[in-house]
Formats: sequence, structure tokens, C-alpha cells
Amino acid sequence: MSEVRTLALACRDAAQVMFTLDTDSKRKLLHDMAAALEAASETILAANARDLQQASAKGVQGAMLDRLRLDQARVAAIANAVREIAALPDPVGLVTRRETRPNGLQLERVRIPLGVIAMIYEARPNVTADAAALCLMAGNAVILRGGSEAVHSNIAIAQVLREVLERHDLPAAALTMIEDLRRETMVELLQLSDIVDLAIPRGGEGLIRFVAEHARVPVIKHYKGVCHLFVDASADEALALNLLVDGKTSRPGVCNALETLLVHRDIAASFLPKAAQVLEERGVEVRGCERSRALVPGMRAAVDEDYAAEFLDLIIAVRVVDDLGAAIGHIQRFGSDHTEVIATREEVSARRFIQAIRSAVVMINASSRFSDGGELGLGAEIGISTTRLHAYGPMGAEALTVERFVVRGEGQVRHAASRLDPA
Amino acid sequence: MSEVRTLALACRDAAQVMFTLDTDSKRKLLHDMAAALEAASETILAANARDLQQASAKGVQGAMLDRLRLDQARVAAIANAVREIAALPDPVGLVTRRETRPNGLQLERVRIPLGVIAMIYEARPNVTADAAALCLMAGNAVILRGGSEAVHSNIAIAQVLREVLERHDLPAAALTMIEDLRRETMVELLQLSDIVDLAIPRGGEGLIRFVAEHARVPVIKHYKGVCHLFVDASADEALALNLLVDGKTSRPGVCNALETLLVHRDIAASFLPKAAQVLEERGVEVRGCERSRALVPGMRAAVDEDYAAEFLDLIIAVRVVDDLGAAIGHIQRFGSDHTEVIATREEVSARRFIQAIRSAVVMINASSRFSDGGELGLGAEIGISTTRLHAYGPMGAEALTVERFVVRGEGQVRHAASRLDPA
Repeated sequence: MSEVRTLALACRDAAQVMFTLDTDSKRKLLHDMAAALEAASETILAANARDLQQASAKGVQGAMLDRLRLDQARVAAIANAVREIAALPDPVGLVTRRETRPNGLQLERVRIPLGVIAMIYEARPNVTADAAALCLMAGNAVILRGGSEAVHSNIAIAQVLREVLERHDLPAAALTMIEDLRRETMVELLQLSDIVDLAIPRGGEGLIRFVAEHARVPVIKHYKGVCHLFVDASADEALALNLLVDGKTSRPGVCNALETLLVHRDIAASFLPKAAQVLEERGVEVRGCERSRALVPGMRAAVDEDYAAEFLDLIIAVRVVDDLGAAIGHIQRFGSDHTEVIATREEVSARRFIQAIRSAVVMINASSRFSDGGELGLGAEIGISTTRLHAYGPMGAEALTVERFVVRGEGQVRHAASRLDPA
Repeated sequence: MSEVRTLALACRDAAQVMFTLDTDSKRKLLHDMAAALEAASETILAANARDLQQASAKGVQGAMLDRLRLDQARVAAIANAVREIAALPDPVGLVTRRETRPNGLQLERVRIPLGVIAMIYEARPNVTADAAALCLMAGNAVILRGGSEAVHSNIAIAQVLREVLERHDLPAAALTMIEDLRRETMVELLQLSDIVDLAIPRGGEGLIRFVAEHARVPVIKHYKGVCHLFVDASADEALALNLLVDGKTSRPGVCNALETLLVHRDIAASFLPKAAQVLEERGVEVRGCERSRALVPGMRAAVDEDYAAEFLDLIIAVRVVDDLGAAIGHIQRFGSDHTEVIATREEVSARRFIQAIRSAVVMINASSRFSDGGELGLGAEIGISTTRLHAYGPMGAEALTVERFVVRGEGQVRHAASRLDPA
């Protein structure tokens, strides 16, 4: 048997154990993990130093290198994130519906863990602890496969957490780290359809497409966030400007940042010049349609690719549209099903926008930057799904569980003829 | 562009239209579909006659041929099933949670349709109308790919339903039938990951494995139902016998029939001989472990394959187990995550069984045969998922939708510095 299959089978066995853990046991486990991370910060920082050295040797520098770097404060932040996850409501055991059937059967829909979750990521080392804590809190076992850039940090963090599992008499395999980072090993992991219940890739679009292409296990995908702000004819202009500035400039490199501004033609002459000015003042490059450029001299021309782009940068595409219907049509054509915002004072426009747009998050008069597990009250977030299945939008602990049926009877049979003792 | 891709793209456009339909419009549509099926019964029966002729020519006979056969009464039953689906609660627009965040944002979690659903099936022609009606009622568009044995009946039924869509000024492509039944065409359909939101295969294990192997779109799988009845030491024996007879004999060919009986050793001497007798009287072949055979002379020996088998026939595997823990271990090893039953009078045993068994449906003192969308109150059923994701167990209309976020604000921004007009 291959090594990855052996590891995964042990993880599946561990999932059976995690399945039955009560809330208190999971919370204690996570609190001990947080404390252990802090206690082991010297070891973690030493491992991190090796990653930094390796990255520097490869020529990585600036913001990229900084994202990889851990220090005492960042280790403390990682530990605190684990404590916050421990404080989340436990989704396992949640009874979402109760019903008594006409034949007296008592039904409950109850949430249970998914089982074995494979996290494939290439982000900063904090994802190792975040993802592990969230999966374990939801009663799952987890297989982590991080990126090569943070391999030493990831292994060090995982080792600390695994030791805590063992101290709690729980199988360390509940948190399995794949240290063999060859692509073929990842592909093998993604094809263990009898073992892995769900794969969650987190990283660039290339990684996600690779996982989706090679997986034979279910995958929750998040390709990109091409988020739109539509400024309706009835919009409060000051409010819309705030949403625009927040959406585009408060953190341009994230998926819930705005990428496209759509403006109703009846408000464009008034709104667009102001919008262009505040954006320009903040260093944002604006690329517009012909009608936009007629209103704002010197604006660069947008092409179709700009409307499909996730810039992740201080660039925005702008288009003047004839009406709400045209805005909806634009979003249906160019959107990524992530988050769309309408600024409007008309309830009928808000309703029509909600009804026609099928993105995971629809905002009325609020910034796209709120499209985030923490801001939407989920606590920690394992990712954002743009797959319209299982979970859609920001995913917290509950998205790592599924509902099943618990049925209590008093001997009910489906066919009366089956009764040996007819009443 | 290939023909199947062209068809699928039209179906995706149609999904945008179905997305916005209100409940009344969908109900009227389905009622007209039911009436149209009845009105077209001559045409449907003529098409069905061709399928029957073709099947007979291939040597199909008996129950197999009968399952394919339609008559006036069966067409009426198909129409009535569509009416029943129209009467279901509409899952679309269902607000499952409301919350006001500390910053005043008003959140709603609201159900929306999945989009485009591909049904791959090889069952009786009624599935064409059932699946179409259920997908449409949940606001989706549907691509149907039925089996070759019922091709003429399926096309005739789909044609009737498509005409009703057109009469309602809705795109006929919302119900797209793939008439090209080559396997490579099915594979192409299953790889349209930018168009198809979900594939649901329904049929034998071979079909489901083929779909799972070739799909690049999400698949909800249901391989098999190896359902267990565990008779605890504290069980009411008469009650347990009823569950056994109902579970094994009322309809042995379906997935929620019992396949394995586990008996606590403390009750085995009393219970097993009675169980063997009632099963034998009903023509059930019993295959048992050594301890079972010591209690029931003449019982055939069971092998491991018997415990893993979905017999779909009047055969049952029996094992005497030391205790509840051993029963759980057996189910964890041989179960299929479908439905398991415990007969017990001890609440503590029931709880432990529920807690340790992670099957989609767990029954206490009730027949496994109730594990069915209709019996569990879902109305019609599109299938039963044994995939612990999205939907688990019987799937009704709601499982063809997903929750998204609707957020209403008054201009909230995430970073205070984004406000141009600080309060």
C-alpha cells in the first residue's frame, strides 16, 4: 500500500473517534493546542527561520517574504485564533428540524461531521493551525497538504498539535500532515474516494484548477472573486462612494474587494466624476467604457478582459449601464458568483437585484468587504465556496458538517402485513 | 462546439429564467404538465410500445419487461406524481436564519436553486417526469440522460413537458433531453464543469461508478444500501421480529431493505430461533455466523462477502455479537452509510448507537423501510445520498437548492478610514 493511502486510512480510523467527541472535549483539546503553540514558539520560529532562509535563497523578498515570516506576536495570534474557534458554537449534534409523522415516527435532522477533510493550501503557515482547529472542532479528522514554501513551519505546527491530540488520548492521525510534497502524491490523495470525504483547495486559481481536475473526491472550489458594485439611479451618492472606497481600497488583494463598478446612466453624470476623483486620490487606476470616458476626461479605456478580471490590485473597471436589467446582465456574464452589491434607495430595485443575481452573497447598501466568515458571524472561516452545492459563500464550522436523519419509533413497520402480532 | 455543449449552454441560460420564477408560476407549470401528460397518453403509449418491442426483441421478459411497460393507469400515476410535487413547499426563498450583526448589518440565509442539474438514470420511464418536475419545482433547469431501454418513452414524455414550458413562455431548454445515448456523449456532459452544477446518477452500482469516475462536475452518489438491524439485549422481541420481517420481506429489491441482522448474545438464544422461523416461512435464505448456526440447526454458513452484500433478494446475513460495541464495529466495517436500525428498550443503548453510527439515517425501533423521501416527509425524492456532503440520505426538493447570504445595510464599510463623510 502506498504511504499516502496508509496515512489516509489511519486518518479515517481517527475520524471515527473524532465523530463521537462531545463539545467540551473538543474545546479543551483546542485550548490545550493554543497553549502548546505558545509554549513551542521557539521551535516553531526555528522551523520558520529555515523556510525564510530557503525562500531568500530562491530570491523571494518584500511582501511575499513577510507573509511567510512568523514571530512571537504572530504565533500568539495563531494560538488566539485557535481559542476563538474553540469558542464557536459546536455544529455537531445541532437539531435543525423536528417532526412527528402521521404514523408516530419522530424525526430529527441532526448535524454530524463530514469525516475526513483534505486541505490543500499554499498560503501562510497560520492556515495549518486554523484549518486543523476548524476541522477538529466540527468533529472531523483532517489531512493537511501545505505548500513547499512553508513546509518546515507547517510540520512544526502540526507536530505540536498532534502531541496535544495524543495527550488527550486521541489518535494523532486525526491531524495528518502530508510531508511528501510531490504533485503525484497530492493527486493520489485526491483520488482516495473511499477515504477522503471532501477536499478544500485554498490558494491561487492554478492550484484550485489542478485540484478540481485531478480529484475523484468532492471538491469545494473557490476560483476567484470578481465582485461588483452597482450604483442604482436612486442611490445615495455619499453612501455609494463610501462603499466604493471601502470595497476597492481597504484591502485590494483579497477576494471580496471590488473589481467592477456599474453605474446607472441617470446618475452617471453626477456620480462618476466624483467616483473617479476619490479613486484617483487613492491611487486607483480606472478603466472605463466609452460612456464613462465621455464623463471623465482622461480615463483609460476598458476592454472585455478588464470586466472579467480579478485585479487584486488598485485597478477598477467601470461601466455605465442603461438600467438595473443591464447591470444584472453584465454581472451574469462577467461575475464569479462571489459577492455583488447594489447601492439603492428603492426597495423594488433591491428586491429585483436579489432575485436575479445568484451569487453567494448579495449586499444591499453595504460593502463587499463584509463578505467574510468572521464578518457574517460564522466565526472562523475555512474558505469561501463559489460552488453552488453543499456550502455557498463563506464557510465556517457548520459547512464542515452535514445533516442526517434520526428516527425514533415504537415498532412501526411500513407494510401492515409485516406485523406478526396484528393489533 | 459539440452538440451536447450547445444543448447544455441553452439549459444554463434557461436556468437563469427558472431562477426567478415564483412559487405560483412553478405550481401552475407543473399542474399543466400533469394535465398534458394525461392528454398525451396515446402518444406516450405508442412510444412505449416501441420500447417494449425493442426490449422483447432483445429477449427481455417478465418483471424487467413489466417495469418498462406503461398503460393508461401508469401514465395517470406519473401525472399525479407531478401534481404531488407541485403541492410540495417551495424551498426557494426559504429564509433559514436571520441575524443582525453588531454593526447593524441584517443577514439572511436564503435558499436558491442550484442551477443546472444533470440526471443520469437507467430506471423506468416515470423517472423522466419525476426528476424533471422536482428539479423545476426547486427552480433549476435539468438535463436528462435516460437509459436506452426506455428511450422512446423518455423522449415522448420530455416532449410533452417541453411544450408546456413553451406555452408558459419559458425556455424549453429548461428541460433538456440528451437523445444521443453514446457513452462518450455522457462523459462529455459530465465534464462540463462550467455549466453543470450537479450530476445525480440513479441506477445500478455500475452506472454510478462510471459517472463518479468520469465526472468533473460534482456528483451525488448512492452506491448501495447494506442496511443493518441490531437487536439489543433489551429489545422487545415481538417488535424486533416485526422490524425484521418488514425490513427483509416487504420489498427485498430496494435499497432500504435489510441485508444483515445483528443479535446481542444475551438475547440470541431466545430471539434467533424465532427469527429464523419467521424468515424461513417467508422464503428467506438465512446465512449465519458460527454462533448463529449453533442456535439454529441447518442454517447455512455466512462468509465475509455476505456481510458486505446488498442482496436485493430474499437472503439475509446474521451474526451474533458480544455487545453494542461489537455491533457498531461490524456496521463501521461492513455498512454503506445508508440506514441502520436498533431495536432496544434502553435509551442509553439508543443514544450510543446514534452517537457512534454515522449513516445517513439511524432508526430506533422502526423499520429500515421508512428510509425514503416520502416516508420521511420530503414529498418526492430525487435520490438517496450516501455521500456525506451537501445532502445525506433521502433527497427532496430542498436538496436541489443551496443557502446563500443576503445582507442589508445602511452604508456600512469595513474600514472606518473608507468613509469620506466621517460621522
